[in-house]
Amino acid sequence: MRPSPPILVLGNGGFGTALALVLHRAGHSVVVLGHRNEVTAEIERTRENRRYLPGIRIPDTIRFRTELDEDSARATTIVSVAPTQHLRETWMRIEPTLSRHAAGTTPEGKHVREVASPLGGRLIISCSKGFERGSGELPSACIRDVVPESRLCVLSGPSHAEEIARHLITSVVVAARDDADAREAQAVFGTTTFRVYRSSDPIGVEVGGAAKNVIALAAGISDGLGFGDNARAALVCRGALEISRLGTALGARAATFTGLSGIGDLVATCTSAHSRNRAVGIRIAQGEKLRDILATTETIAEGVTTTASVTELSSRLGVDLPITRAVYGILYEDQSPRHAVERLMSRAAGDELGAD
Amino acid sequence: MRPSPPILVLGNGGFGTALALVLHRAGHSVVVLGHRNEVTAEIERTRENRRYLPGIRIPDTIRFRTELDEDSARATTIVSVAPTQHLRETWMRIEPTLSRHAAGTTPEGKHVREVASPLGGRLIISCSKGFERGSGELPSACIRDVVPESRLCVLSGPSHAEEIARHLITSVVVAARDDADAREAQAVFGTTTFRVYRSSDPIGVEVGGAAKNVIALAAGISDGLGFGDNARAALVCRGALEISRLGTALGARAATFTGLSGIGDLVATCTSAHSRNRAVGIRIAQGEKLRDILATTETIAEGVTTTASVTELSSRLGVDLPITRAVYGILYEDQSPRHAVERLMSRAAGDELGAD
Repeated sequence: MRPSPPILVLGNGGFGTALALVLHRAGHSVVVLGHRNEVTAEIERTRENRRYLPGIRIPDTIRFRTELDEDSARATTIVSVAPTQHLRETWMRIEPTLSRHAAGTTPEGKHVREVASPLGGRLIISCSKGFERGSGELPSACIRDVVPESRLCVLSGPSHAEEIARHLITSVVVAARDDADAREAQAVFGTTTFRVYRSSDPIGVEVGGAAKNVIALAAGISDGLGFGDNARAALVCRGALEISRLGTALGARAATFTGLSGIGDLVATCTSAHSRNRAVGIRIAQGEKLRDILATTETIAEGVTTTASVTELSSRLGVDLPITRAVYGILYEDQSPRHAVERLMSRAAGDELGAD
Repeated sequence: MRPSPPILVLGNGGFGTALALVLHRAGHSVVVLGHRNEVTAEIERTRENRRYLPGIRIPDTIRFRTELDEDSARATTIVSVAPTQHLRETWMRIEPTLSRHAAGTTPEGKHVREVASPLGGRLIISCSKGFERGSGELPSACIRDVVPESRLCVLSGPSHAEEIARHLITSVVVAARDDADAREAQAVFGTTTFRVYRSSDPIGVEVGGAAKNVIALAAGISDGLGFGDNARAALVCRGALEISRLGTALGARAATFTGLSGIGDLVATCTSAHSRNRAVGIRIAQGEKLRDILATTETIAEGVTTTASVTELSSRLGVDLPITRAVYGILYEDQSPRHAVERLMSRAAGDELGAD
């Protein structure tokens, strides 16, 4: 009998590589799928992700590939960490191969587990953050469009890849409608340094991670203007309430935003030196124009796209999001950062947890 | 007719002085009462609070005193910012004088407002944080014991004194059982840089500010051990949930802890370079003993006392507070910081917003 199939990680960026290290440490066989040949080949050869996790040694047994092979096509667990804007095409590219290989079966075709379809037997753990440009869809919805019969969980929380890769203690939350799926995902990662809590509110967990980068931009702008710790703490706190309003309009539970995927991730993103979005906010506050910043950075700060998506979503849902509106005005309508933040802050302060 | 009486600020530390500056800017006449003659005299003479707010010029019209005079004894608004451990004695010291002078009356004895008693006409805005040692009482309860007939509000939120004094934008929340009192307190401060939201949950607002320093110590310990941004964000987030459990057991509403006085203040305290409590946590993580740290600092970090009070309170209320328990073990039972934090983090991660 062949050994059980490996866990498949989609995406070889910093977060994908870091999660592959966690899964390897938890005792799994791991295959990481990337889409650019030269990057994949370099990681496979040097055993280091020089671009995103320089200095971290990657064990030889983690395989980096650009195509599914016989073995990885049978993965019963797929950890999806592709960038949100490439997520749909990534899944469309691998779906035919997955559909030809029943999950967990041996090459002789014997089913290791009872499943309704080759895709239905798979547990997909979606870790991408943001909203798809154009459609405004959450990552899990993009995946579900391609592989509707899969069992889908979302994973989110304060989880800078550099720290996960160095096995520093990290706490995240995994959410699924069916608690059995969340428990299975929790068990997959179960190491002492990567702690996985469970939630039954996948929409809430996913919206928190998706929308946080707008607030990170706002925090960066506030920091760049020299507004201090009081203002930043208020922005984080009011930002969490704002995301919670957006989330509940989408069907999430408000309490979820008090957890790791809500305020937890916001705290990490808005106060950390690692955050690209916060860094972009600081540069904007210092007078740089968005187009010039975008011209000098290889990776777009996700929050720039997210601000447009969230703004579109808020008008569709009829939810007022004043911080997002201010960031949108600064990024896309050429408003002065100082003026926009001061206007935001000069709004009448009413009942704290009321609608305003 | 004499002008209306001044606003009385109790306490000339950093926070008291900063609030006096805000009140002055809002157009009020302000008297600040301190208890140490030499400090008060120095501030009055140099127009600077050299110990707590060096470099900030204090306008000549803000008066610094150690005793109530005819004028300040008639204050209709009293902003109470005395240290929690001296709060009761401060109020006991001034109560007889206040009781002899009807609030807001002219020297001729004409009542400016209809009040049931000299104290009943006063609005007290309590800004102290922590629990009283021994009794475990919240600051507002200490004040109420001395002047039960007053109208009492509590004010809290992310509010480093240095930033308030420099008129950087700061957002706080004021809470009272009676919304009319909260509105009156809100109006007292109404400047554009010191933004005051309202809440109807005074217990929740006060517990958030009182308990936060335990989590700030924990965050400092985590930082001092080099655990990184992910661990700190998780501590802040799990800490807020822990404070929320304590607060709801005391009668607060859970939602209040998602606001400025809950997570907002925690974010400011746990991530700021200004926080004394976080700084003590860092030193403890680096191997210093509590008694040695206390011997070298003039002001006790409030969290050290609070940790004992909260621990006592949690066992009385039967609420499990794992982070507080870990901090207590480190401070008072000589547990190794690394060992205690690792044990905290190796607890089974269950349902995220459940009881554990």
